[in-house]
Amino acid sequence: MPDLRDAGPGGLNLLSASEARAQLDRGEITSEQLVRDCLARIAAREPDLDAWVYLDSDLALAQARARDSEPSRGLLHGIPVGIKDIYDTADMPTAYGTTIHEGHRPDADSNWVAALRDAGAVILGKTRTTEFANPVPTTTRNPHDLERAPGASSSGSVAAVADYMVPLATGSQTGGSVILPAAHCGLYGYKSSFDGLPTGGVRHAKPSIDTPGLFARSLEDVALMRAASNGQTPATLELTSDTGLRVGVCRTEMWPEALPETVAMLAEAADILAAAGAAVSDTEPPAVVSQALAEFSAILAPEDARAIAAEARDHFDQINAWSQKSIHEAKDITPAQYENAKAVAARARTAIDGMFDEYDVLITPSTRGEAPTDRLSMEPSYFNRIWTLMYLPCLSLPTFTGPSGMPLGLQIIGRRDSDDHLLATGRWIEQRIAQSHGT
Amino acid sequence: MPDLRDAGPGGLNLLSASEARAQLDRGEITSEQLVRDCLARIAAREPDLDAWVYLDSDLALAQARARDSEPSRGLLHGIPVGIKDIYDTADMPTAYGTTIHEGHRPDADSNWVAALRDAGAVILGKTRTTEFANPVPTTTRNPHDLERAPGASSSGSVAAVADYMVPLATGSQTGGSVILPAAHCGLYGYKSSFDGLPTGGVRHAKPSIDTPGLFARSLEDVALMRAASNGQTPATLELTSDTGLRVGVCRTEMWPEALPETVAMLAEAADILAAAGAAVSDTEPPAVVSQALAEFSAILAPEDARAIAAEARDHFDQINAWSQKSIHEAKDITPAQYENAKAVAARARTAIDGMFDEYDVLITPSTRGEAPTDRLSMEPSYFNRIWTLMYLPCLSLPTFTGPSGMPLGLQIIGRRDSDDHLLATGRWIEQRIAQSHGT
Repeated sequence: MPDLRDAGPGGLNLLSASEARAQLDRGEITSEQLVRDCLARIAAREPDLDAWVYLDSDLALAQARARDSEPSRGLLHGIPVGIKDIYDTADMPTAYGTTIHEGHRPDADSNWVAALRDAGAVILGKTRTTEFANPVPTTTRNPHDLERAPGASSSGSVAAVADYMVPLATGSQTGGSVILPAAHCGLYGYKSSFDGLPTGGVRHAKPSIDTPGLFARSLEDVALMRAASNGQTPATLELTSDTGLRVGVCRTEMWPEALPETVAMLAEAADILAAAGAAVSDTEPPAVVSQALAEFSAILAPEDARAIAAEARDHFDQINAWSQKSIHEAKDITPAQYENAKAVAARARTAIDGMFDEYDVLITPSTRGEAPTDRLSMEPSYFNRIWTLMYLPCLSLPTFTGPSGMPLGLQIIGRRDSDDHLLATGRWIEQRIAQSHGT
Repeated sequence: MPDLRDAGPGGLNLLSASEARAQLDRGEITSEQLVRDCLARIAAREPDLDAWVYLDSDLALAQARARDSEPSRGLLHGIPVGIKDIYDTADMPTAYGTTIHEGHRPDADSNWVAALRDAGAVILGKTRTTEFANPVPTTTRNPHDLERAPGASSSGSVAAVADYMVPLATGSQTGGSVILPAAHCGLYGYKSSFDGLPTGGVRHAKPSIDTPGLFARSLEDVALMRAASNGQTPATLELTSDTGLRVGVCRTEMWPEALPETVAMLAEAADILAAAGAAVSDTEPPAVVSQALAEFSAILAPEDARAIAAEARDHFDQINAWSQKSIHEAKDITPAQYENAKAVAARARTAIDGMFDEYDVLITPSTRGEAPTDRLSMEPSYFNRIWTLMYLPCLSLPTFTGPSGMPLGLQIIGRRDSDDHLLATGRWIEQRIAQSHGT
């Protein structure tokens, strides 16, 4: 895996958001300087990566200068953030990844963008997403290997953060669109509990599945952006007690899909945590969860069809084949089938919540293995969609590498609506792995 | 209660949506004729009621003529619908009830509006809501008694439908903003299961509480609009079996607030249903539900503060006192308290779901009693917020009247995500009550 730091201009764009925050607070740098270095990095690498769908340097710099000239608004004051192009922005186009809405200019921010601005963030630009965030690959490349996919649908966000173009970016996950690309690009990926980050103002969503998530290059930055997004103070990333952490190794029924590097990673992680004093044991989700997973598309297809009903009516030929198929499938799902699927999912959520009486967190793979070299097919979200449907908060730690030197993600799953605790546990686990790796 | 039919021009505006649908299908009327009669009714009564914040007759008629000149798009083809001014419309301003956004013109429809257009609806105009749909009364009056409030926050929608200005309108409920005004104005009010109607594209929402709902003058119309909103076919409103319907009479801990007319109504309803063969018995929610209700504001305040963070930062003085207070309260609620409140609510939802193993539906009051004559204070949502927080579908039937001849609502609560079944049960109950009343 190449050191991407060496590939760039080596300026302030290498700072994490937390590091930049500290330097801004001490008056050592300005937001304008920080943004300029990010823009320089983008200018150098964007021709290779194709991570951005909208970027206006003047607008970005104007925001930075405005932040520099006023008192701090909050946690992200002066920090540039990339926005996945499904989140409306008042001052930039939003096209939801489709030619149907090319050039569409919302006149209001979605709630998450509004919250980020409220915390002082510089909205740097819009990152490339798949059409309506549905699973059809984009032209964005993996910064660690341009012949590999970065993972979808938050492709542009993940590539931009991994490549030091911007320290933070927003994403969203229906199947695995945050955790999977984070793992493929060596980032920290965090998908919140179902409503653990602001969802207001997002159109074209599968409303009972889609969940916001974010990308960062450090766990402090994950906690920082999460807190800024919710108007809170950042979690401490310290466990109140680190004795006897109960870790469930949860391979799930998708385990036969795991590639050898993933099999090795999970075994190593379990060994490291057990050696560090955690109570580690194998576990499986309750049976009803498999049933819910089997019904996933009976929820997904009707909600997708409803979300893009207007586009399907007026521009069906412009919609990609996946969405066209989804719309056709939706026609065969009766309201009773849809409601039954949702009822099964609700029962499964209650059942899986019970696992967290026995375990503090679960560990599982983020992906099948390294990012595939095939850039045109869609990497399946085998190890992700179950947790999305179960509304559980997920964190991918970039603490392992595969046989080609590409990143591998270790996914940690927390109790629903206990996201801060998940992040603190993630820090404890990451430290134990780092110690074992001697890094 | 005056017969509002006699007060109006007596034209096509008196038709329910289902009746209009049939006449349109048979070619007996045009959408333009229907819309013209609605506009005439509005012209006559709007000075008294103040139900609309935006109405452009030319735009409404242009939509109607367009529908008349094309094949049917769907269930609401050519039917006028009023839109609560929290739902974005691409061709009309949307101000969310606040002067901050006065004249704001979204350039895209919220998903529900898009779905209604997709079903052929004529988006007639925007109805008056409270500021950010928060509980501070509006200037809208109750059509049955201009000295009484219609109920908030969906004030304009409920007044417009009750007054035969439009057959259908959208609403939304955080506490009781659909069921309460429906009951106060003698309408069918339906609040869906948490995500039983399209929520995409709604900003300024309390995302884990706010739920869409709608108003109509018949139960067929409720089923019609629900189906049109979700791209489905309407529920049949027939129970597969009407023998042994199990009805729980659920007075809730708020029962001491019930006014005498409500006490009498619930007793009468229970007697009628028992006489009709239903198994009727008293029941109470599980104890954890009270605990969840006590935590309601620990969820509401932080979500409200986040939803209007940008407005609070830039226009705090323009925000009403309730929202200002909510923003202050939110500062004292820690992330841990918020997450705990959500966890309690989730446990309570699971517990209350269990009631529907014993009962097919619950009956309970829609309000304390008749609409109060005080138009300036806020009628509390005592008998509503519990069900909103529990995500259960609710239906208010306008089948009773109070001592002043004002309408009273009987609220029926169904199993989560079984909204079609609730509507069919509502029909069975309404018929039994009508038979008993000899109407």
